[in-house]
Amino acid sequence: MNYQTVLEEIKEEIRPYLNKGTVANYIPALANVAEDDFAMSIIEIDGSEHHIGSYKKPFSIQSISKVFTFTLALDIYGKDLYKRVGHEPSGNPFNSLIQLEYEKGIPRNPFINAGAIVTTDSLVSKYKENTFSTLLEFIKKVSNDENIAFNKEIFKSELESGYRNFALINMMKSFNNIENHTQEVIETYFKQCSIMMNTKQLTKSMLYLANHGVIPNTNSEIITQAQAKRINAVMLTCGHYDASGDFAFHVGLPGKSGVGGGIVAVVPQKMAICVYSPRLNKHGNSLVGTKALELFTTKTRLSIF
Amino acid sequence: MNYQTVLEEIKEEIRPYLNKGTVANYIPALANVAEDDFAMSIIEIDGSEHHIGSYKKPFSIQSISKVFTFTLALDIYGKDLYKRVGHEPSGNPFNSLIQLEYEKGIPRNPFINAGAIVTTDSLVSKYKENTFSTLLEFIKKVSNDENIAFNKEIFKSELESGYRNFALINMMKSFNNIENHTQEVIETYFKQCSIMMNTKQLTKSMLYLANHGVIPNTNSEIITQAQAKRINAVMLTCGHYDASGDFAFHVGLPGKSGVGGGIVAVVPQKMAICVYSPRLNKHGNSLVGTKALELFTTKTRLSIF
Amino acid sequence: MNYQTVLEEIKEEIRPYLNKGTVANYIPALANVAEDDFAMSIIEIDGSEHHIGSYKKPFSIQSISKVFTFTLALDIYGKDLYKRVGHEPSGNPFNSLIQLEYEKGIPRNPFINAGAIVTTDSLVSKYKENTFSTLLEFIKKVSNDENIAFNKEIFKSELESGYRNFALINMMKSFNNIENHTQEVIETYFKQCSIMMNTKQLTKSMLYLANHGVIPNTNSEIITQAQAKRINAVMLTCGHYDASGDFAFHVGLPGKSGVGGGIVAVVPQKMAICVYSPRLNKHGNSLVGTKALELFTTKTRLSIF
Amino acid sequence: MNYQTVLEEIKEEIRPYLNKGTVANYIPALANVAEDDFAMSIIEIDGSEHHIGSYKKPFSIQSISKVFTFTLALDIYGKDLYKRVGHEPSGNPFNSLIQLEYEKGIPRNPFINAGAIVTTDSLVSKYKENTFSTLLEFIKKVSNDENIAFNKEIFKSELESGYRNFALINMMKSFNNIENHTQEVIETYFKQCSIMMNTKQLTKSMLYLANHGVIPNTNSEIITQAQAKRINAVMLTCGHYDASGDFAFHVGLPGKSGVGGGIVAVVPQKMAICVYSPRLNKHGNSLVGTKALELFTTKTRLSIF
Repeated sequence: MNYQTVLEEIKEEIRPYLNKGTVANYIPALANVAEDDFAMSIIEIDGSEHHIGSYKKPFSIQSISKVFTFTLALDIYGKDLYKRVGHEPSGNPFNSLIQLEYEKGIPRNPFINAGAIVTTDSLVSKYKENTFSTLLEFIKKVSNDENIAFNKEIFKSELESGYRNFALINMMKSFNNIENHTQEVIETYFKQCSIMMNTKQLTKSMLYLANHGVIPNTNSEIITQAQAKRINAVMLTCGHYDASGDFAFHVGLPGKSGVGGGIVAVVPQKMAICVYSPRLNKHGNSLVGTKALELFTTKTRLSIF
Repeated sequence: MNYQTVLEEIKEEIRPYLNKGTVANYIPALANVAEDDFAMSIIEIDGSEHHIGSYKKPFSIQSISKVFTFTLALDIYGKDLYKRVGHEPSGNPFNSLIQLEYEKGIPRNPFINAGAIVTTDSLVSKYKENTFSTLLEFIKKVSNDENIAFNKEIFKSELESGYRNFALINMMKSFNNIENHTQEVIETYFKQCSIMMNTKQLTKSMLYLANHGVIPNTNSEIITQAQAKRINAVMLTCGHYDASGDFAFHVGLPGKSGVGGGIVAVVPQKMAICVYSPRLNKHGNSLVGTKALELFTTKTRLSIF
Repeated sequence: MNYQTVLEEIKEEIRPYLNKGTVANYIPALANVAEDDFAMSIIEIDGSEHHIGSYKKPFSIQSISKVFTFTLALDIYGKDLYKRVGHEPSGNPFNSLIQLEYEKGIPRNPFINAGAIVTTDSLVSKYKENTFSTLLEFIKKVSNDENIAFNKEIFKSELESGYRNFALINMMKSFNNIENHTQEVIETYFKQCSIMMNTKQLTKSMLYLANHGVIPNTNSEIITQAQAKRINAVMLTCGHYDASGDFAFHVGLPGKSGVGGGIVAVVPQKMAICVYSPRLNKHGNSLVGTKALELFTTKTRLSIF
Repeated sequence: MNYQTVLEEIKEEIRPYLNKGTVANYIPALANVAEDDFAMSIIEIDGSEHHIGSYKKPFSIQSISKVFTFTLALDIYGKDLYKRVGHEPSGNPFNSLIQLEYEKGIPRNPFINAGAIVTTDSLVSKYKENTFSTLLEFIKKVSNDENIAFNKEIFKSELESGYRNFALINMMKSFNNIENHTQEVIETYFKQCSIMMNTKQLTKSMLYLANHGVIPNTNSEIITQAQAKRINAVMLTCGHYDASGDFAFHVGLPGKSGVGGGIVAVVPQKMAICVYSPRLNKHGNSLVGTKALELFTTKTRLSIF
């Protein structure tokens, strides 16, 4: 199948949706983007690349960073990680604090904020003050691109307005599920959210998940095959917050979205995909990104179902 | 791959687990089974069958019936069904009532009890007093087997002790999300849970979900390809209650369990599987059944991830 | 103090509020009242009576009946009653089902619906098919008036539309906190809610709570002094649902409201009061009734605080 | 009535309970007390004092400080205060976070932690860096005693381990119900909890609530009569967390407890009472203190019911 043609068709078909939805504006730094921007990249395991739109323009990856920290923590701790963070969907967002209380500070999965904060805390326990640099090195390695950094302005804004995340980390600390200083963990967490990448880099960075844990062109094993499958499973069931079921239902691929407008997706044993468009639907996921991926699996029949 | 050999290996390997877990005993009629029983069936789209254990012995299908009512309701109402029942995972069981209250009587998905009751209510609105017979005819058709009936003793016991389900239906009725008389709907619901089938029949009955909505040997289209994919997606994200994430994580296939000890699973475009063993793990799913399916995808690499 | 003058002043001062609020209309039978009606009665322990407005016109007492069933059950079971129903405020109404789930089917207090249903169930365990007639006899005795009955039309309407109460009783039954058939209990419960009384009768019926458990003019001991105080305490902390704190705050007397528009209140060791006006505020309590009682304690300085 | 004799009787009768319950030990500084200590003071509006036990020994007043901040905030803001904090009971502690989430960051009353933190925040908005000194001056004034200070060790320990309170304040800040820097507010809050007073000082400090808002011996009006009644009403309905109903039920007086082992109570228009004993019951209130107050109202018939 000619994926470049598919990308071009998708670009046409999503056009009527480009002015729908709303860019995240809880911090000014995030709102400051070209609202109708669009980019999409496909990279196959064999190395073939297909891109469309502004695929070289970096954006804030936000929660997509949770895939990287989950990978690193799973590599370090193996199944022990699940003592501190589960792998079940979380139900609606209203319940996040209730469940944290009810389940004694153990977040449901590593892709909700509480779970990602615990995951980052587990990295801080291992890498101390080098945690963020280690994470950044890892991302550069799986992206095969040295040119990746975080945005200081976004980081500072997040830190200044992240009261709800401070509430979450303090609640988990009260249940002894945070091992390090809350300030240190939360700063690392907001730094990882502020990393800037483009769709090409993000797509490349997901190939190890499409390829049983191994970076295809370098044959470098990042995690085991079993672990790669499990990360995919958690992306499918938990990757889109309260719309995870909807994403599985309409797109049918493991994926992870970020409030910056990016979505990554994995076609196991075939390819990785990334789409970017900053306006969000009511669930906080890229509206056009979700639509583009739905069109992609409809056209290519690559849904895993 | 020789699936019969795989089944034989699995039978050996699950042996140490056969005396673990507990048979459902909330009603005596369900507890009255051979506790260490085991059966497993695989039927490929091309018609090849592979069975092991007591695969001709019928058991109470319980919640597996929800797959059939979801299919029928989706066929009748299409997307309108989602106005009355969602397709998102529900989080932990504790939250089911909270969410029903918070979300104004709309259950999260058709595989939790509240959602299955709404689904059955939608069938009663269409088929009136013929609802159960219509459902049974449908099951006979997809199973290609006339010899299927419900167990009156189990039905009566369920009806007499199903206070929590009565609570759910009355709550939804108070939100106007039940259209028919509560007694009529709940009786139909408990009847469908009391249907007796063996692993061979259940496996055959799932083939349309593995085959894009079409029964392979008859070419009868049950639902559209898109609908079949969506049912699979909902089975993956919501099919095992509070252990849905865990099942996706360890097994990696769309599946649906019943408290009677059965689990069905679908390998899209390849085959359907059913396993039976009545002892349950702490999540209320067949302990050996879950283990057997995990062994199956490990051995065959048929996980969708 | 001349209480008749106080009543006349109050009648003048509440006039601007008489067309505010909304009559309960969840069943037609309740909505069918004179919307701007007003009545208020005061009876002192020494027998002095003071009335104003339509004090001889009966209305549906609704939840005020819970004071009578609580009294009867406390007399029969003493402290054992608290194993089945607590005496703590319940927080907001949203939580009623959550708390019932979290606290294993034990309602927080006898004045929320769940708690009143358990209380009625405890009476059915004792009085069987004579429960309602026993209750009615009790009410006639404490009111010193034979002319009291329930309204069949209201009863039937309640029964036909009381889905949420059916949900509550079934949930409690699933936790084994209902001993009798749900239908029998719920019918008794709705009958007691449908009892018709006027402000004169209701005021008289509350005198034993103002007089340490003893009916003043007959010296008949209904309950012990300690029990009377405790019923007053529960009325103060729990008598007005989600506005109990507000009522204590503004009125400062033990009281119990009904959705039919009545409110009873007790001035310990001095008098009982009843006010009626059918339009309700947003908490489901008589708007003018609440205002009238606030004026009463402001004018008379009879607040217990 | 001879209150000194009553105190002596109580001291005898609570003796068997002195070794029951557990001293608060979430911070070492609090656990470091004489576990079987007991003190009780009564001061009448006319100035008569009655004391027993270690009534000159200061202890950590903890949540009793919330009465003082509520008084000050009510005096400054009047009814506007209720836009930021309610006056309804909160139900069980599990619900505090649910309710904060559900009710958009508005705590239910000023006596749960979240509500007291908002109250303190409202004082910081007015008094800035002088908030704590203003509060301390107020307490010295109502106690008529200059010799009152906070315990730095307890303050530091609270600050270092108060993760749950940090969670609460951050959650409320995310709903814009905290106006000042979270660190500044929380430090003031923990300082007020660390104030040390003895039963004599605390009893004196409550007399304005027994005397319609006026300090009896100085005739200094602290708040209006209506406000004093309302603080008493909130103490009665909300003063003992999840055991507020129970306290109203058994003691029948407005009261406020602290985890340090103190309980204050008010007999309107008659007297104030304070009892101290550091071992707590399962609700976190002084076990012997609660028992002593129950004995007091039984013996003196001073329950407001």
